[in-house]
Amino acid sequence: MPEPPETEGQNRLYLEDLAVGRRFSSATHVIDAAQIKAFAAQFDPQPFHLDDETAKGTLFAGLAASGWHTAAITMRLLVESGLPLVGGIIGAGGEISWPKPTRPGDVLRVVSEIEEIVPSRSRPERGMVRVRSETRNQRDEVVQVLIAKLVVPRRTAAPAAAREPATK
Amino acid sequence: MPEPPETEGQNRLYLEDLAVGRRFSSATHVIDAAQIKAFAAQFDPQPFHLDDETAKGTLFAGLAASGWHTAAITMRLLVESGLPLVGGIIGAGGEISWPKPTRPGDVLRVVSEIEEIVPSRSRPERGMVRVRSETRNQRDEVVQVLIAKLVVPRRTAAPAAAREPATK
Repeated sequence: MPEPPETEGQNRLYLEDLAVGRRFSSATHVIDAAQIKAFAAQFDPQPFHLDDETAKGTLFAGLAASGWHTAAITMRLLVESGLPLVGGIIGAGGEISWPKPTRPGDVLRVVSEIEEIVPSRSRPERGMVRVRSETRNQRDEVVQVLIAKLVVPRRTAAPAAAREPATK
Repeated sequence: MPEPPETEGQNRLYLEDLAVGRRFSSATHVIDAAQIKAFAAQFDPQPFHLDDETAKGTLFAGLAASGWHTAAITMRLLVESGLPLVGGIIGAGGEISWPKPTRPGDVLRVVSEIEEIVPSRSRPERGMVRVRSETRNQRDEVVQVLIAKLVVPRRTAAPAAAREPATK
């Protein structure tokens, strides 16, 4: 029986398609001072994210994006181009760090690597994948590391035999 | 010599003012479907964050906020009312998880507890504080747990003798 036509899900990956060590790269996003200040005004209203002059006298020594802004941009890059998973990107949680500030003018992109694949015992239709995503700027400096646990669907529609090698 | 007049920093806490086990509570924020969709359109454009009807057929079984939206709202609550630190809230990183979805109509607040205080050896003017922040809804369900490492300034202006007990 032919598979139903796919449009949105085309070329998107199931758990069985992933392998530890497989890497993905996203498109880029250019962040500017206006974006940094707009995000900060809404979600992280602190002087080092809001005002160029005041920021100079802080630990950041200049305007820097909220870490949560870097995280949000990273998510957009992952969703749109960085990690083509069939069910979307559904995170249960993870570890996050910001080794360097994100600055106005930075060109951000996300490089991800599959670190672990764990099929669920209780839920045969899915599994958990640990992915390390580094958000890098135009100088290849890492501004964020996110190690996320994602829920990824299995290709359960296929009968068991189809998952065996074709020849033995 | 009298201390300079403080306005912004009034009643804000230095490293020496914190103690393991001390708790803080934030004000509340009411999240609605319009906020959820606006954040998702900008940063996490996936069907379960964008459209009520489509969301019903997903793992979330209804519209849910992006985890990064919950994180951003948590940050705003911490900055404005939840954690009055003298240098602001400067995070080096941490662990984050979302045990339950954030839903339209949820009334979010953040309850934080100091878990560890580590004065810096190399930087005598500051230290690192580990804070567990639970974001809870109106039913007291935890929708996010953030265990963050924050940089907190010491009250270095005081001479060494002033940090000893007043009587012995």
